[in-house]
Amino acid sequence: MCGVIGLIGDKPVIHNLIFGMTALQHRGQDAAGVAVFNENSHFIKKSKGLINDIFESNVVENVQGNLGIGHTRYPTAGTDSDNETQPFLANASHKIATAHNGNLTNYEEIKQLLLKKGIFLDSSSDAEIINKILAYEIETKQSYFEAIETLMGRIEGSYSVVAAVGNKSIIAFRDPNGFRPLVIGEKEGEICVASESVVFQTLGFKRIKDVQPGEAVVIDKNLNITSKIIKQTKRAHCMFEWVYFARPESFIDDRSVYNARLKLGELLARDWKKEIDVVIPVPDTARAAAIKFAEVLGIKYREGLVKNRYLGRTFIMPTQKKRENAVRVKLNPIKAVVNGKRVAVIDDSIVRGTTSKKIIKLLRNAGAKEVHFISTCPPIKYPCHYGIDMPTKEELIANNQEIEEIRNYIDADSLTYQKIENIIEATKKIDLCMACLNGKYPLSISDKQKNEMAMSRVLSRKD
Amino acid sequence: MCGVIGLIGDKPVIHNLIFGMTALQHRGQDAAGVAVFNENSHFIKKSKGLINDIFESNVVENVQGNLGIGHTRYPTAGTDSDNETQPFLANASHKIATAHNGNLTNYEEIKQLLLKKGIFLDSSSDAEIINKILAYEIETKQSYFEAIETLMGRIEGSYSVVAAVGNKSIIAFRDPNGFRPLVIGEKEGEICVASESVVFQTLGFKRIKDVQPGEAVVIDKNLNITSKIIKQTKRAHCMFEWVYFARPESFIDDRSVYNARLKLGELLARDWKKEIDVVIPVPDTARAAAIKFAEVLGIKYREGLVKNRYLGRTFIMPTQKKRENAVRVKLNPIKAVVNGKRVAVIDDSIVRGTTSKKIIKLLRNAGAKEVHFISTCPPIKYPCHYGIDMPTKEELIANNQEIEEIRNYIDADSLTYQKIENIIEATKKIDLCMACLNGKYPLSISDKQKNEMAMSRVLSRKD
Amino acid sequence: MCGVIGLIGDKPVIHNLIFGMTALQHRGQDAAGVAVFNENSHFIKKSKGLINDIFESNVVENVQGNLGIGHTRYPTAGTDSDNETQPFLANASHKIATAHNGNLTNYEEIKQLLLKKGIFLDSSSDAEIINKILAYEIETKQSYFEAIETLMGRIEGSYSVVAAVGNKSIIAFRDPNGFRPLVIGEKEGEICVASESVVFQTLGFKRIKDVQPGEAVVIDKNLNITSKIIKQTKRAHCMFEWVYFARPESFIDDRSVYNARLKLGELLARDWKKEIDVVIPVPDTARAAAIKFAEVLGIKYREGLVKNRYLGRTFIMPTQKKRENAVRVKLNPIKAVVNGKRVAVIDDSIVRGTTSKKIIKLLRNAGAKEVHFISTCPPIKYPCHYGIDMPTKEELIANNQEIEEIRNYIDADSLTYQKIENIIEATKKIDLCMACLNGKYPLSISDKQKNEMAMSRVLSRKD
Amino acid sequence: MCGVIGLIGDKPVIHNLIFGMTALQHRGQDAAGVAVFNENSHFIKKSKGLINDIFESNVVENVQGNLGIGHTRYPTAGTDSDNETQPFLANASHKIATAHNGNLTNYEEIKQLLLKKGIFLDSSSDAEIINKILAYEIETKQSYFEAIETLMGRIEGSYSVVAAVGNKSIIAFRDPNGFRPLVIGEKEGEICVASESVVFQTLGFKRIKDVQPGEAVVIDKNLNITSKIIKQTKRAHCMFEWVYFARPESFIDDRSVYNARLKLGELLARDWKKEIDVVIPVPDTARAAAIKFAEVLGIKYREGLVKNRYLGRTFIMPTQKKRENAVRVKLNPIKAVVNGKRVAVIDDSIVRGTTSKKIIKLLRNAGAKEVHFISTCPPIKYPCHYGIDMPTKEELIANNQEIEEIRNYIDADSLTYQKIENIIEATKKIDLCMACLNGKYPLSISDKQKNEMAMSRVLSRKD
Repeated sequence: MCGVIGLIGDKPVIHNLIFGMTALQHRGQDAAGVAVFNENSHFIKKSKGLINDIFESNVVENVQGNLGIGHTRYPTAGTDSDNETQPFLANASHKIATAHNGNLTNYEEIKQLLLKKGIFLDSSSDAEIINKILAYEIETKQSYFEAIETLMGRIEGSYSVVAAVGNKSIIAFRDPNGFRPLVIGEKEGEICVASESVVFQTLGFKRIKDVQPGEAVVIDKNLNITSKIIKQTKRAHCMFEWVYFARPESFIDDRSVYNARLKLGELLARDWKKEIDVVIPVPDTARAAAIKFAEVLGIKYREGLVKNRYLGRTFIMPTQKKRENAVRVKLNPIKAVVNGKRVAVIDDSIVRGTTSKKIIKLLRNAGAKEVHFISTCPPIKYPCHYGIDMPTKEELIANNQEIEEIRNYIDADSLTYQKIENIIEATKKIDLCMACLNGKYPLSISDKQKNEMAMSRVLSRKD
Repeated sequence: MCGVIGLIGDKPVIHNLIFGMTALQHRGQDAAGVAVFNENSHFIKKSKGLINDIFESNVVENVQGNLGIGHTRYPTAGTDSDNETQPFLANASHKIATAHNGNLTNYEEIKQLLLKKGIFLDSSSDAEIINKILAYEIETKQSYFEAIETLMGRIEGSYSVVAAVGNKSIIAFRDPNGFRPLVIGEKEGEICVASESVVFQTLGFKRIKDVQPGEAVVIDKNLNITSKIIKQTKRAHCMFEWVYFARPESFIDDRSVYNARLKLGELLARDWKKEIDVVIPVPDTARAAAIKFAEVLGIKYREGLVKNRYLGRTFIMPTQKKRENAVRVKLNPIKAVVNGKRVAVIDDSIVRGTTSKKIIKLLRNAGAKEVHFISTCPPIKYPCHYGIDMPTKEELIANNQEIEEIRNYIDADSLTYQKIENIIEATKKIDLCMACLNGKYPLSISDKQKNEMAMSRVLSRKD
Repeated sequence: MCGVIGLIGDKPVIHNLIFGMTALQHRGQDAAGVAVFNENSHFIKKSKGLINDIFESNVVENVQGNLGIGHTRYPTAGTDSDNETQPFLANASHKIATAHNGNLTNYEEIKQLLLKKGIFLDSSSDAEIINKILAYEIETKQSYFEAIETLMGRIEGSYSVVAAVGNKSIIAFRDPNGFRPLVIGEKEGEICVASESVVFQTLGFKRIKDVQPGEAVVIDKNLNITSKIIKQTKRAHCMFEWVYFARPESFIDDRSVYNARLKLGELLARDWKKEIDVVIPVPDTARAAAIKFAEVLGIKYREGLVKNRYLGRTFIMPTQKKRENAVRVKLNPIKAVVNGKRVAVIDDSIVRGTTSKKIIKLLRNAGAKEVHFISTCPPIKYPCHYGIDMPTKEELIANNQEIEEIRNYIDADSLTYQKIENIIEATKKIDLCMACLNGKYPLSISDKQKNEMAMSRVLSRKD
Repeated sequence: MCGVIGLIGDKPVIHNLIFGMTALQHRGQDAAGVAVFNENSHFIKKSKGLINDIFESNVVENVQGNLGIGHTRYPTAGTDSDNETQPFLANASHKIATAHNGNLTNYEEIKQLLLKKGIFLDSSSDAEIINKILAYEIETKQSYFEAIETLMGRIEGSYSVVAAVGNKSIIAFRDPNGFRPLVIGEKEGEICVASESVVFQTLGFKRIKDVQPGEAVVIDKNLNITSKIIKQTKRAHCMFEWVYFARPESFIDDRSVYNARLKLGELLARDWKKEIDVVIPVPDTARAAAIKFAEVLGIKYREGLVKNRYLGRTFIMPTQKKRENAVRVKLNPIKAVVNGKRVAVIDDSIVRGTTSKKIIKLLRNAGAKEVHFISTCPPIKYPCHYGIDMPTKEELIANNQEIEEIRNYIDADSLTYQKIENIIEATKKIDLCMACLNGKYPLSISDKQKNEMAMSRVLSRKD
């Protein structure tokens, strides 16, 4: 996952760009970068690390330019080298800088095509491919829309892209399935495009509309917005944005993330039969579902696990080993809440099962009489091809184990998963990508592509 | 406020010391330091900044020593100079290192006494005074207890101290009123003393007991614990630890912080009359109270404000100006929760009123129909002399304004404060220090001392 | 100017690569980078700053790979952005990484050609152009030599390039004029190509031979060296390497830099008529010439100016203003040497004249009775098109002022420049590029190109 | 060794203080610190590292105060802990900050006396002792001179001290033997006291006079200078300042360091008999002696060894192992100078012999036919008690080996040492401390003290 942002207006953008990026830091804590354009010059700063550490005041204080884009990145395949950070820049007649969230499924194929044309990549990032093709098409086509249309004719997979065309325009477009979110906001004299609407709240902007699946949007320096649906197909919004990934303040494709999570809790409550004393969430994502679950059932809701805020985010840590060590330091049970109780603990999802196992152990050590584990997400059985960084198929505990086996492994008194159909009810979307749950990938993908992606996943392991 | 920790055992302490300190980082984010003792050498590292930034792996990887102490500090008077960081060290026959949480009310008086004896201070920290006297008394007295007794005969105010005596012993003691917490935990082969029991959970230790008010505890390298009540008086536990300061996982003087906060919510609900649609907390402290408040009243509990985790903590930020700018970036309302609703928002306390005002504005902008503001703490009217960093009397909004004035200033539809007597019920303690609420300071303090402290407060302003 | 290095052998290269780069730090102190290749992965680290600061032990300790290249860069046009650092990487079938020292005169033309083909640049560095074309040609041609031949058919200007072809080979080639140096060295089991032979001394390698002008060299993992003269023309070695730029330990095109500098001093002495008491160099470059000058004339040689080693290098500092402030802090006269004396001070060259003026003032303030200024380099009148970062024509003091005017400006009692023909005698080379002295550019260059380069020079000003 | 500086005047001192310190960085590269005083506040910043890294612009930009002191430190016993950095501060009625260069021989004795009085030290630095006693005496005595007199009655050894008395005065004093230098300079509106006069050149100040041995100087805010000879005894200036330690620009006790070094070369030439082709110095210190040596003998002087400026200083590196590795990387022979030649190489001194051995090997590998090694300093046989950081007696090669043995060990064709009496002639001083050469320590020192110092030396080893 990644976060993208573009900002254009009548004043220098650097500070709002960086503030806005802090509201997207949850989408990637491994690296961050910005590209800002001025009439005669541009500024690019990108590096591994957190936004706060990269963009110290002395780095940005003199950066001029009323147009810029930014990117936050989480770690994947081969991203250790300094070449892999975004935004990418192409020095065409107009300088084109690109920030991308998603995953191209035909990356290898396009790479080979480009190779044949003598267009080589500096990185192994699909954002660079988008950047290079976009730059070429803008160079040769009559309009931005034509350029984007050609680009979208070539690339497959998920992509929510924000690009800057020199000091002239911000361009944004989203794949025809609409896997990843992209939304537009405004404020007197400024327009912003970002992965999530939470950015607008942070900056004091107003959300205007989602960029539609297959739509391209162009914003010029006079803040004229033009847009066009380039390509249409069946929508396939990634259900994981609502379930886990996005910030609860955000609206994604007009559906409140927070409300979706509440609903997930409500739906879990429908079939619940067991006697329990208290409901607790694994913070922070599962909180909304747990509140509603408890509310519907009339059971006490408590905060039974507390996070140490001075360490990072579990899901994003790069290696299994660090992940394991991290749990004890990062989560503490509140003994006063769980001691002697039958506890239902709600987490957003179960990936490898290792974190769940640790949490249950923590709760039992804190005196919990029973621990019932509930996942707001159905069993995750298949890898994601569209940009969520999941482990390989073999590591997904639900891929090769039955629920009872998993329950046994994590040592829960019971284990309850959300039903797949509930995801549709919770998100109020019928057109979801639920490939990781049911294996139905919205885009047909060749065996070759699958192998390539699996290979890249294996190579990208750091431990 | 500060956090202290001491660790002694049969293995190198540096890593657990630092991990433990991350669980105390909420007690001070301005500076941190450790002192670790080996047979022939010692290691001291202390600096401004967060623990994660100061103690990078290359700094600590070779630090040996099975005995050490640590400190986290929040900013106060004159703490910009590198001399002000703890632990302090006295090179007596045994090296004595000290970490202190609290505030000595007779600092100036002792300083003058020491001056007359030719004992000068390198800093303006009262921890240094404790360190110097302690070292002197250990040097000249028969036993540690005698030494501490003499020390406690001289110093007044609040103090929870952890000290290392060379490579021999950890000493811990707490002022006779027991203003600040101090608690002992253990694990096979190791003993730990820390400000809060949350440290033990983080490290996998077991809480043994609180250091009693007026008690001194000595732990030697064989892990023998000896203790003695040095001085007794009326207890005066700082109620603010339960209301705001401590981590919810902690037990302070045997009372669960989380349960106390739940009770504060329950007690607020008792007299509640207004019609409201939803209860939301200001995260993170007020969450427990809000959950219980909503539960008792049968009103919906929701998370209506979300924190940006990639920025610091409001209360601790040094200047008014930064504080103001920080609110919008750090808190976002969830529109889906508050839009069109009559909202009760619960915060732990109201200090200057500026944050409350900003929050209410955020909620109104997000569509809240009514905003009722509730403080789990009664009106804060008087400055703290015992270690909580509050603004001057004049800046405390409740010091010079009636509740209706305050309500008007923060622009709430209603404003409700906790009753003072409820604090006693919630903490299950009758012996509390509530001087900041009722002006009854447990320790008589001369006008001279008051002036000195007020002066120091004024001088310490950074903006 | 820049420094390049390539290293290949039977053991991990990272440490020797970095040590070797420190011996090239004088060729560029603005940024540095390495690319190291392993069987399955590669490591790229590049950043603004000095080598010591970029490559801290924790960054490089786990870098595997027996083949790698490195680069040190000095600041020029638009190099503030993070995109401008070398090495560049092209992900062709084999990954191609390139480090370049020189300047392409037909950069804009090639850029436009590439643009038309849809090959866009991420940077404004000509090293990227070389990297991209090289990668394309290696992809499509039968042999490396064919590939380099095609590349050299396209690019014009000065270039000494070291490239890595994945984990397979190191390639090195030099422009047909041989403007910039490039030399090969070896040690049991390892071969190194570098800008200057001083690298070999630092690493304990033996110098084998210079890469010839127009020659390409390929070294494979078995350390087989094959080479081929790709293109021949009249040589035009940059005389400034001997006069100022290179380290005195280096041999450039078989001519010792130190000996050349001695000779420059000897030749200056030939026509010297004035009575002087002492000869002093401006450290460090002019030392050799001053020693010989004094020796030939039988005048005392002394160190009359001492450098503060804890600050950077004058020539390389980016802005005029910093340059001016820097002189006083960086050079101190030794009063005991110059007081009451008629001093001849020898510097390597005079560019703007501002440093010379400051030095003379320093010497007069220290009591010098007369100050005779001598430049080992003839008057610099024309900008360099081949990689030496000089100011614009207008800023070159010798471009628009007669010697007497310059003498007056710098306030010397006399001013003596080297004769142009002496440069040939000193370097023992007849085929030199002396365009900056006589305006005879070895490569015909269009007015358009001149304008483009002048423009880029103007845009690159930072003050 | 250390460097000290004090600055007082009518404008903020922070920038000149730091610039001045860069001119003293050669006296200590391990740590640095400043203390600056304002009417109501003070600023202390001190840390391990080089001045350039510690005092970044954002650290110092807002530091006010027209009075301050600074310190540069080289590493010795136990200086790894953050407590050991100077300046030290004593919060007496007036804040007293102290920076010290030297070594107290009765440190342990005083420490014990202070311990008995309950005055404990935070560090193992003798600067802290001076600071504490000075503060006490200023507190209790009528005048600064009385205070310093009492202090000087207690401490023994070498000390050149600069102290700040709050925002009131700068105090400077020097031990009665005058081991270490201390000198006063001025500029319109400002007065500076520093270890070496090179500081004044850097800052554009004028040297006024040396602080005399046993003299104390007080400079108030009106720039009135008062001074008094506190204590007189036989002078014993450390000859090593002229031979090796000080910057050549400096005048120490009115004797030019550069001229003394020239004279050392001249005196070595007197008895020289061997046939040689070329004289080369080991840069930088030995340059002056080598120039004069060659001049007197009429032999060619050349720079045959070049330093890599991007690494630190040999003498100051903390461990033997690092020292060994460092030589090859830091020094390169110029083959053109030494190949086939009979080379006389002049170094300032020989301590362990390991560096000499490496240098000779480098020169032989570069083709030198013969290598004659010459030391401008006589054999160093005894440890220094007065502040020069030498290895233990056992490690001093001249302590336990005859000259012929040393020659054999370092593999020189001949080895020549300066005669002891020549040191007197070169420095024009009869009252020198040459204890490291002849074992005659100017201050009687008890066996107990010797043992303590030896012990501390052993404990301070880092490898």
